[in-house]
This record gives sequence, structure tokens and C-alpha cells, in this order.
Amino acid sequence: MKNFEKGQCMEYKILDKDNIVEYLYSIDSIKAYFSNDSLEVAEIGDGNLNYVFIIKSQSDPKKALILKQAVPYLRCVGEEYPLSKERMTYEIRALSSFAQITSEYVPKLYDTNEQMSAVIMQFLGEHIIMRQGMIEQTVYPKFAEHISTYLAQNLFKTSSLHLDSTQKRALIDSFNSNTELCKLTEDFVFTFAFMEHETNDEYSHGHEIAQELFSDMQFKKEVLALKYKFMTQNDALIHGDLHTGSIMLNEKETFVIDPEFAFVGPFGFDIGALLGNLTMSYVSHIALGSKAEYPEWIINTIETILVEFETKFLALWNAQEESSLITDGFISEVSLQEYKSEFMVQILRDSVGFAGCKMARRMFGIAGVADIREIEDKAIKDKAITITLEIAKRFVKNNKKIQNIEEVITIIKEECQ
Amino acid sequence: MKNFEKGQCMEYKILDKDNIVEYLYSIDSIKAYFSNDSLEVAEIGDGNLNYVFIIKSQSDPKKALILKQAVPYLRCVGEEYPLSKERMTYEIRALSSFAQITSEYVPKLYDTNEQMSAVIMQFLGEHIIMRQGMIEQTVYPKFAEHISTYLAQNLFKTSSLHLDSTQKRALIDSFNSNTELCKLTEDFVFTFAFMEHETNDEYSHGHEIAQELFSDMQFKKEVLALKYKFMTQNDALIHGDLHTGSIMLNEKETFVIDPEFAFVGPFGFDIGALLGNLTMSYVSHIALGSKAEYPEWIINTIETILVEFETKFLALWNAQEESSLITDGFISEVSLQEYKSEFMVQILRDSVGFAGCKMARRMFGIAGVADIREIEDKAIKDKAITITLEIAKRFVKNNKKIQNIEEVITIIKEECQ
Repeated sequence: MKNFEKGQCMEYKILDKDNIVEYLYSIDSIKAYFSNDSLEVAEIGDGNLNYVFIIKSQSDPKKALILKQAVPYLRCVGEEYPLSKERMTYEIRALSSFAQITSEYVPKLYDTNEQMSAVIMQFLGEHIIMRQGMIEQTVYPKFAEHISTYLAQNLFKTSSLHLDSTQKRALIDSFNSNTELCKLTEDFVFTFAFMEHETNDEYSHGHEIAQELFSDMQFKKEVLALKYKFMTQNDALIHGDLHTGSIMLNEKETFVIDPEFAFVGPFGFDIGALLGNLTMSYVSHIALGSKAEYPEWIINTIETILVEFETKFLALWNAQEESSLITDGFISEVSLQEYKSEFMVQILRDSVGFAGCKMARRMFGIAGVADIREIEDKAIKDKAITITLEIAKRFVKNNKKIQNIEEVITIIKEECQ
Repeated sequence: MKNFEKGQCMEYKILDKDNIVEYLYSIDSIKAYFSNDSLEVAEIGDGNLNYVFIIKSQSDPKKALILKQAVPYLRCVGEEYPLSKERMTYEIRALSSFAQITSEYVPKLYDTNEQMSAVIMQFLGEHIIMRQGMIEQTVYPKFAEHISTYLAQNLFKTSSLHLDSTQKRALIDSFNSNTELCKLTEDFVFTFAFMEHETNDEYSHGHEIAQELFSDMQFKKEVLALKYKFMTQNDALIHGDLHTGSIMLNEKETFVIDPEFAFVGPFGFDIGALLGNLTMSYVSHIALGSKAEYPEWIINTIETILVEFETKFLALWNAQEESSLITDGFISEVSLQEYKSEFMVQILRDSVGFAGCKMARRMFGIAGVADIREIEDKAIKDKAITITLEIAKRFVKNNKKIQNIEEVITIIKEECQ
């Protein structure tokens, strides 16, 4: 009996070791890739949300692909925590959009199937999750260059500064119903981690620094303003969860993975996620007393990413003759450049604000970062948490006053002295 | 032969005197309304975009309805200016949404049919288009009260301050493809009227004041920022074209009509349209030397609308326990009130900025306002244009600095002295 018919009309079925090979060989591009070799299938156990399989050719283990499938619940908890499998629809669409614009930073896609909530893509066997690499103090000399290009290209080319109004609205359409994952961000990045809540880490209960954060009303007022921006500002297609756990890399290559939180949202959110997570890694190494070269590399990387993002984004914008926003002949070149500068400062401000939310919510919220939460020495861990929160609070409370990148770097350095 | 089958699945057909009665009597609610009377049908010739018919019962002329149908071109120009008839889809959806929230300010809907791009509604026989009424110096004592309720209720209840994330995204979905009419606003409200353009009124060619406006780069830089906000900020369902020509009223009742430009956009856009158009009427009466009572009534009306909008919007917000933005227990009451105050100032700032764009674009752009463009005396007309532009420029250039409603009123009064 055939379980899988060719094409996109197949009925959803959870894949497992018993039926996965049949599924793979029902797809022409996969057949072609493996030339009908016998296949070895192994489940990778560490996916939080989804099932992930490595598929290797038995005769040539270098031939390998990844299959990722969403199930209608949270994989790491089980069927009692339902989460619609359609999240994979948005991941597929985002991977395809980003791959079209920056193919070198997105795993090669071999097959995508929205009905099956499944994607088959390049196996990144020689790359490591960036968060892990940074805990191990690995330097990635090309990373700032790669990720600033990724951000500038994808944010610019999916915005109203590039697309015409019809294209932009079609893009909004494709991602507008990613409600469930946007709601997770609204709840867990902007809300629950800053108040007494059952989902918070037990470390927060009765912890003095947590109490101080929860009662900082100026901080919370700004968090509301940033949350509102997240909910209502549709600048560009964003990854939506661009922390160092969503990046796989080595010294030569960088890949951005897992964009299931993607939607058309504010420019600053992805930049902020990256800024916040790199800053937390920096703080962890300062607190741990790691050799100075490593935190120095991190802070230089942060600065380079922000500077290069701005340069590249502006270069794309200057190369753009007309757009739905700017009509040829509307405004003088001098005034247009002023407008663009103010626009870039606004992106920086939003990025800093979002970075602050992202950092603070990692301290006591449901999802910690290994860089800090796994520090074993309590005094060092508390020091890292304290510094992170001081930076986060300054980022959030002062985001509207930030004028340039130097000020951002200064805040980080001052709090680490 | 039957031309119209019952129900929503009928094929689109342009209605005319010959087939309209058959269409009307294919609809149960219309049959019931007219109880099978003989009908008298007359086309109203003054629709710019659409065909509009009055349908009256021959035996009881008090029984009357309006039928409005969109054709796939601009009615006032003809088939050589195509404009998709699906604009009526958005008008129907907006009328239905606004009627659900504020039924007393929306014509009663008897039948809507997206396939036929047609709506059948209450005939407003005892009401006049507000722009005309104001040119004739008619006072509408209930207007400020009515329209501030209309604005507060509709803007609040279609925003993320009231809807949950799923409802808000569904609302965005319903209006997201109203691209064509949003594009008209982008082009004609924010762009062409501020530069040399073939669509501008001939009055602009070589006109000194026009040249001055077209070369005011600080003004244009702010216009770009406001245009970008119009294109990317999805606060609430807005009417999209709320000038005094979209309001029909008398001393007792107020109705808002023609929401074909509706989409989920910035809070300040409808308030700004109204502020701008009332201000232009005020300026016209000052320039014309009308008896002081009338402009005084207008300026008081403007102030009351802005004050009452804020009061009513905040009252709705304070009555709202939780929302997708604000979780119970997240922030102290004092800080929440501060946040809300800042939020209201931001709405006011945006409203003032949009009002300035709306006013300035009416001076030399494709669509003038009768209040000013039809002034026969050239000196008086130029005076009205000059004052309007001075107010418009101050509104646009200073929108980000506005702190309260008094400042707005002061700007208008100062320029009219």
C-alpha cells in the first residue's frame, strides 16, 4: 500500500523511522539527490518544537540531508501542549523568502511541503550552533560580515523601501496568520518574564534582583511601548527569533535557521535579538573572567554588525531609484539623505529597545540562555544576571534617546567595568 | 429569463434602470421592505467613483433606499480609467464593521453583496453633505458629540487595545488587499500634490505659493515620515477618507458614509482628515469675512472633537480589563495611566501631522475642496490658500513637538489673525 502520493496534495501524516524512507522516495528531487541509495535515518533528539531527522546515504555518508517536521503539539512537552503544525507553513515561507534574497546564508532547500508541515534541507554537518560555539570561546572572523549582509539584504528587500505596495501587501498576507507564534513572543518576550508568573524560572522566586526588575515601572512602561510596536509596525519580513541558537556556523560559513516566528514586523526586532544575545555572551565571559581576547572579539563584532548593517542598508537604499515610499523628484538629495539618516537612527533605537527586552526576559523567564543560566558558581551567575539587567534596563529606558552606535557600545562597556 | 439568482453566488453584472428592479426583488430583505410595491428608480449623477440609485416606492415615497454599485472603472471618467470594482468589497466590510460598533452613525444596511459589488442602504433624504452645509454656514450642534463617539468607539474597538491577537489579525486580513485605494492615498495625499505633477490643478502652475510649498524640504521630509507611518502602522480599522464630504448630517443626526478607503492603518489618519477639513472650512470663512459666530462655532467644534475623542477613548480603555497589549498585574495603575497619556499625545501628534498633509494636498492637487477652490474672488481665494498652507506647514513640521490640544487650536487661530 502506498502511503504517500506524489505532489503537494498528500494528507498530513506524522513521519517516523518506519515511513520516512517511503516519504523521501516519493519526492523526485530527493530521489535524484540520493540516486536510490539505501538510506540511514536517525532522529536528532534535541528539537524543542519539531521532529528532526538526519538522512544519510549508506554507501556515501557525505550525502546527507535534514528533514524537519512539525507535529500538532510541542515536541519537548508532548501532546498535552498543543501547538498548531501550521507553524511550519511560516517557516517554509520564510526560508524560501530569505533564500531567494540571501541564498548563501540559508540552508539549501531540497523540498518543502506545507501539507506535510515538512521541509528537507541541507545537512550542516560541519557547523555548530553559535551559542555553543561562543560558550566554547570560538572566534568566527566572518560572522559580522555575513550577518550584517543577511540583515541588510533581507530587511531592505522585504520593506516598503524596496517593494511596491502590491508586493508588500502580498507579503503581509503570507505571514499575517502566524498568530500563534507572534503571541508566544508577545507573552514570553514582552510580558510574563517581567512579572510574577507561573512560567518563570524557579530562580526568580524571591530573588532580589527579580523583584527589583518586576517593580521597575519606568522599565515596564517602555516595554509596553516596544510591545505595541512589535504588534503594530509592519516594516519588513523578520526572522522573529534571531538569537545565537538560530545560527549555525563555522569559521567560513554562516547559516540562519528556524524562522518559524517570521512575520512582517519592525525592522529593529531581529537586530535587537542579535544585539541582545551577543551582549549576554559578552557579559557571561566578563563575569566568568574569560581571557580578554574573547569578550573583546565579541564587542568588536557587535559594533561591526551595527556599523555594517547601517552601511549596507543605506547602500541598498541609495541604489534604489524609486519605491512605493519615494517618488523620483519628490525631494532634494540633501533632504533625502537627512531623512534616511533619521530613519537609520530610528532603526537603531528600536533595535536597542528590543535588545533590552530580549536580554531581560532571558534572566528569569521560561527560556534562559545557556551562556548565563548554566554558570555553576552562584556568585558569578548572579553577577552576570545583575550586569545583564543593568544593560537591559538602560537599553529599554533610554532607547528613544540613543543617537549613535558608539553610545550603545559605551553602555555595554560601562556596565561591565 | 432570470438574470439574478437568489443568494451570494450571482455573477457580477452592471445594474441599470432596466435590470435593477429585478435585482432588487431577487433579495428577500428588499422584498419585505417594499412589500412588492411598484418602484421608481433614479440615478444620482454626482457619484465620482460609483453608480448610485435612489429607489422609491411609488405608492409611498417615504419608503426609499439607496443602491450603490461599483463598476470596474472610475465612473466620473469612464472605462479608460480602470479601477477594480473590488473596492466595494472593502466598503461593504467597513460599513458592516462600523455599523456593528456604532450603528447610530452608519446608514442602515439592507443588503450587501460582494460579488455584485453592491450595497443597498438607508436613504438619507433629510441630511446634507457636511461640506455643503458648512459652506452655507449651517451649525450642527450635535456633530462634535456624535463624531467624537464614532471615532473613539471605532478606533478603540478595532485596535490591539481591545481585540485579541487572533481577532486583530483576522481584521487585517479582511482589509489587507485594499491596495489600490491605499495607493491612491499614498500618491495623491502624500506625494503628487507637493511636486510638479500632471495631475495637479492648473492653478498650481507657476503659482508662487505652490512653488514655495514644492521647495519646502523640511515640510517634505516630515511628509515622508507621515507617509511611511500611513504605509506601515496598523493601529486600527480606519475609514481612510473621513473629510466633510464623507459625512451626511442634519441638526439631529450624523452619518459617516463612503468608507471604500478603509484598511487597518494609523489611529491619527481619520482624526487628522477631520481636523484638516474642519480647519479649511474655518479658514475659508475667515478669508470670506463671514459673520464671526460661524468660524467661532467651527473652532469650538474642532476643540470639542479633540477633547471628547481623548476622553471617550480613555474611558473605553480604562473600562477594558485585559487586552493583547496589557496583561492584568503587569504594571502599576499610576504607570499605566502615564503610559496611556503618552499614547494619547502620540495619537494627537499623528493626527496633526496627517491633518497638515490633508490640508496642503487640497490646495493644488487633483482634488480641491469646494470651501476654498470655489471662492470666486482671486484675492480672497489666495488669502485662504496662503493661510491654509501656513497652518498645514506648521502642523506637518511641528507634529512631533505638539504636547496638547490647546497648541493645535493656537496654531489655527494665530495664522488667521
